Amino acid sequence: MLPNILIEEQGLRDGLQTLPITIDVETKIEWVNMLIAAGLKRIQVTSFVNPKLVPQMSDAAEVIRLLPKKKDVVFSALVLNIKGVERAIEAGIKHLSISISASNTHSLKNANKTIEASKEEFTRMVALALANGITIRGGIQCAFGCRYEGVVDENLIYNLVQHHLESGVQEIALADSTGMGNPYQVKRMMQKVKQIANETPVALHLHNTENKGYANVVAALDAGVTQFDTAFGGLGGCPFIKNATGNIATEDTVHLLHQLGYTTNININEVSKITLAMEALLNKNNINSQLHIQGLMYKLVNQSNIKII
Amino acid sequence: MLPNILIEEQGLRDGLQTLPITIDVETKIEWVNMLIAAGLKRIQVTSFVNPKLVPQMSDAAEVIRLLPKKKDVVFSALVLNIKGVERAIEAGIKHLSISISASNTHSLKNANKTIEASKEEFTRMVALALANGITIRGGIQCAFGCRYEGVVDENLIYNLVQHHLESGVQEIALADSTGMGNPYQVKRMMQKVKQIANETPVALHLHNTENKGYANVVAALDAGVTQFDTAFGGLGGCPFIKNATGNIATEDTVHLLHQLGYTTNININEVSKITLAMEALLNKNNINSQLHIQGLMYKLVNQSNIKII
Repeated sequence: MLPNILIEEQGLRDGLQTLPITIDVETKIEWVNMLIAAGLKRIQVTSFVNPKLVPQMSDAAEVIRLLPKKKDVVFSALVLNIKGVERAIEAGIKHLSISISASNTHSLKNANKTIEASKEEFTRMVALALANGITIRGGIQCAFGCRYEGVVDENLIYNLVQHHLESGVQEIALADSTGMGNPYQVKRMMQKVKQIANETPVALHLHNTENKGYANVVAALDAGVTQFDTAFGGLGGCPFIKNATGNIATEDTVHLLHQLGYTTNININEVSKITLAMEALLNKNNINSQLHIQGLMYKLVNQSNIKII
Repeated sequence: MLPNILIEEQGLRDGLQTLPITIDVETKIEWVNMLIAAGLKRIQVTSFVNPKLVPQMSDAAEVIRLLPKKKDVVFSALVLNIKGVERAIEAGIKHLSISISASNTHSLKNANKTIEASKEEFTRMVALALANGITIRGGIQCAFGCRYEGVVDENLIYNLVQHHLESGVQEIALADSTGMGNPYQVKRMMQKVKQIANETPVALHLHNTENKGYANVVAALDAGVTQFDTAFGGLGGCPFIKNATGNIATEDTVHLLHQLGYTTNININEVSKITLAMEALLNKNNINSQLHIQGLMYKLVNQSNIKII
């Protein structure tokens, strides 16, 4: 019996942050409710970052205020500095993703800090959040390669994982922010990270930038990873990484997982309705779900008895 | 030391056959020469099929006549019936892919014959080709799922492999024509097929229709497969399968293989030039190489020192 896979939907944060359009807060809340109806138990709803640099997330506090009350769903927000943690505490969110980059160049562009300075601030951020009853995922960005620096030293990643654990986080997440990771590397590194993390859950955040995202999912499953981040329609990308596009799509990932025999309790037809709404607002080039691009999803939505497995 | 992987470029056949434009024979030959310069040792250049149904391949004999003389490159053509073999013999090609479908419904649409009738004709086709000094790849279409019939019985596939071997083919190829295959299925089936084929080489033809194509490459490598079909720019699709699109892209597949540590002796920058030429002729929606879509390939072509690995 294969394990249940926990999916964290990041379409509302990673998916929207680089788009040329702004989604109003009522629509965001409508989509949160649709994601819950689709079976998602983890939803990253926003980030508390510089609203001048990422205007799409400037309504973060309002999003948190309007979230539905659901005890069995974890809502998360991304923060990159102490100020973000303070805003998040004030907004009343109960779970945070606190992330630092494994690339100095990316760290300076994304958070205006070196890795060393980020580690020091990370420790203070975690302490502040924990003191306010917030649970924390400690993330590592650019863990499998940097578009500016190339290969990232694997030992640096393991050191950052150890650092995060010592800070007191409840969960570790590695992000292939650039989509440069490859399946053999992902399997090897995730085996090692899981060993270091021991009982602490480990999640993986993948992009399909170079068409390796889904192969990396399978490689991570081989390493025992059971938590993945995805975004509806394969939207997404970091504003501070060249050519950073496309999270692995929720629809395509869940379809893959179900075919392999894993359970997710997610209904991809329901997730797909949000992507269809996005398609109406966007140039189709922003959609990175093959099931959508190839028209297979439309059949699923319009004829629920169509068998694509 | 990981093995060398043999890539058969199918862009000129599978890639062009469903496009809304016609490529003239001089351009096709120019692209053959570019593919050879890029290091390809196997190139499927055309098919001898009904020119009324697949007009893009109506210049098949002319393409064969104009091929450059290259002793270290194998040029192949696809045929589906005795008439195709006869035309291929007359054209003077030395290697043929003779393919039958594992789905009755697809077989009737694609070749106007049931599987049983196809098997009988296959035996006669192989005998005729062998008698004329032609080497043969025996192919099985829709080996991992059919868009009309759903799941395909695995035992039927193994029986067809056995049938092909007994007919005297020099190579076996399984095609995931619909892109419905998944990595666990591909690994399991390719292990079994390689066992049945014994010393006879086994190739795999994959489509990325559902975003599983590259994960299926890695799964097949695990099963010991060392031959794959690809198409420049991820073009391709069968005219007789609903929503059949996108072979795995030569550029993305070779990039993945090189990252994993395999050799191919293929220069993806050179392959990419053909895709760039196609982009100038086509709506960009036909391009399915992530390296191209995300603009990474342009950097490779324009700045050969850019490190994307």
